[in-house]
Amino acid sequence: MIYPKILEELIEYFKKLPGIGEKSAERLALSVIESSEDDIKMFSKTMIEAKKNLHPCTICGNLTTEKICSICDNEYRNNKLICVVEDYKSIFAFEKMGKYNGVYHVLNGLISPINGITPYDLNIDGLLNRCKKEENIELIIALKPSIEGETTTQYINKILEKTKVKVSRLSYGLPVGAELDYLDSLTLERAFEDRKNI
Amino acid sequence: MIYPKILEELIEYFKKLPGIGEKSAERLALSVIESSEDDIKMFSKTMIEAKKNLHPCTICGNLTTEKICSICDNEYRNNKLICVVEDYKSIFAFEKMGKYNGVYHVLNGLISPINGITPYDLNIDGLLNRCKKEENIELIIALKPSIEGETTTQYINKILEKTKVKVSRLSYGLPVGAELDYLDSLTLERAFEDRKNI
Repeated sequence: MIYPKILEELIEYFKKLPGIGEKSAERLALSVIESSEDDIKMFSKTMIEAKKNLHPCTICGNLTTEKICSICDNEYRNNKLICVVEDYKSIFAFEKMGKYNGVYHVLNGLISPINGITPYDLNIDGLLNRCKKEENIELIIALKPSIEGETTTQYINKILEKTKVKVSRLSYGLPVGAELDYLDSLTLERAFEDRKNI
Repeated sequence: MIYPKILEELIEYFKKLPGIGEKSAERLALSVIESSEDDIKMFSKTMIEAKKNLHPCTICGNLTTEKICSICDNEYRNNKLICVVEDYKSIFAFEKMGKYNGVYHVLNGLISPINGITPYDLNIDGLLNRCKKEENIELIIALKPSIEGETTTQYINKILEKTKVKVSRLSYGLPVGAELDYLDSLTLERAFEDRKNI
């Protein structure tokens, strides 16, 4: 064993984190033991508190330390416009965009028969309840462009077909800055299908 | 603020680690809060214990939880062959190589007048004492090929000039697998100077 046992253990913990390989884990572990004991204690405390205090918003499923998240609780946001997302991480991506003024609904997954995930495993009932509570609800389904994403989109659209809820999905097409000759054919096909009049 | 405050704080801690940017810090923080509370507690405990228990070996300066590190304490290693390194991280690199059977000496830095680091700030006295204690000591100076590294190498060589201690340094030259046309001229120059008869 090259490293002292306790350091080896610390490296193992870092290696469990996403995107951290052997080399990075070693670098991170060594940098930790080079920081002050107070810093390490504060870091640990923050990790444990974040884990303890963060839970899903009772309305939309976003991460929050309160009962209702800061987005649902914001009276300046349009709560008749609901963006339906797979998980709370998508919310952060949309919030960074900074152009969306509606609220969100987290499904906690996508329909995937191959992995045994049915519509009943997702937070679709919660979505239907929200659609019933208010009038003139508009849904923007923002799921990833995969078989599971599309199945889930179609499923939600289907069950809301006979209601007055307006449903749209994000457009498929060219990502900004893409080189056309490097794009996969499926993306190009979608960009053709979803083409827009100018 | 896009993230809940406690999550934002956790992201800030991860951003302080080397090689971790905004995006990676977010990913790491989210992955932490998705692991179990027990795992987070064990991770924290390991960090704090590593910090508390790891300290320099009293002989060579390597990281250890004991008084003397596992390398100095290993009777199968040649303690008359001492590899002089800048910091304990270099020891890990040499140990990974797996071909070196001597011991080490950590200087804790390099001579750097521009940064106000003089020979007296380094653990050179400790090295001299080790050279005096035993006979037929051989030093391999393994410092980085920079002005500071070379100054320190020359300094150590100079003060040992009149003793019987044999001093060598690592060779400079082409790194294995390098493309000659991409190498900098200084490395090529050194490879010429240090050329070896075949």
